[in-house]
Amino acid sequence: MAVILGIDPGLAAIGYGVIRVEGSRLLHMAHGTFTTTPDQNHGDRLLAIRDWLMAVLRRYLPGQAGVEALFFSRNVRSALPVAEARGVILMCLADAGVVVGEHTPLRVKQAILGRGSADKLQMTSMVRVLFGLAVEEPLPHHAADALAVAVCHAHSRPLDGRASE
Amino acid sequence: MAVILGIDPGLAAIGYGVIRVEGSRLLHMAHGTFTTTPDQNHGDRLLAIRDWLMAVLRRYLPGQAGVEALFFSRNVRSALPVAEARGVILMCLADAGVVVGEHTPLRVKQAILGRGSADKLQMTSMVRVLFGLAVEEPLPHHAADALAVAVCHAHSRPLDGRASE
Repeated sequence: MAVILGIDPGLAAIGYGVIRVEGSRLLHMAHGTFTTTPDQNHGDRLLAIRDWLMAVLRRYLPGQAGVEALFFSRNVRSALPVAEARGVILMCLADAGVVVGEHTPLRVKQAILGRGSADKLQMTSMVRVLFGLAVEEPLPHHAADALAVAVCHAHSRPLDGRASE
Repeated sequence: MAVILGIDPGLAAIGYGVIRVEGSRLLHMAHGTFTTTPDQNHGDRLLAIRDWLMAVLRRYLPGQAGVEALFFSRNVRSALPVAEARGVILMCLADAGVVVGEHTPLRVKQAILGRGSADKLQMTSMVRVLFGLAVEEPLPHHAADALAVAVCHAHSRPLDGRASE
């Protein structure tokens, strides 16, 4: 039984999803969103992300993690804080000995929907269907993305520390 | 006596410089460059940066740090790994309770040379003169930049955790 953590990185909001692989089945374990706010000191936000992520790793003990690769062509300035948070996330995963694969948004969409274009609502709906999540259960889009990254990772599991696309 | 750490961030090479403030004098304590290589796992490079920086913080016990702000207009793709390393650096400084100020390359040059344009050689020469460093002493440009950031920080010391420009 392999436990896979999926992460949709960010500074203000990080989505996470935890799944486990049983044979050819992918089972939902947990998902959620961790947030920081601009009124916090910048370094303290990054520190809070480390403390939160280390607690997630201790709780679910994933052996592998899929992290969404940064898509930066739209807004460079907004990509930099996300990259800072990604640095902390990748460092924590290395510290915990978790094998990491990075997956582009395009590949994540293809893994879930079989095509590269999809809006947030379509992705969230498909993730609900895949894992049989009740409509009453909150599924913020960052958490849905993170579960989708975990699924993508399960379908393309790397043998070494940093998977290529 | 205030000890100030200056950092020129990067993933492959980080410059650092440590100075202390005695009255109106700035005295050189240490400088150097920490490097990681592309053959290392990406997360392991970030982890190595954390371990190195925490050792520097334990050794010199700076109360404040100046970190060069990211200048990203030239090459977005190369800015992202630097931002990831910056995230780890800012997290470590927050973890150690160090007060951080971020300073643009323009402000750093102005603080050292009185003007905003200078090449690497001019910056390095001026840093040598400022601290009376012998010509035999190696001063890589990342380390010279880091000492310059520390000087800039000494001249504009913030009262709170994240200085504005």
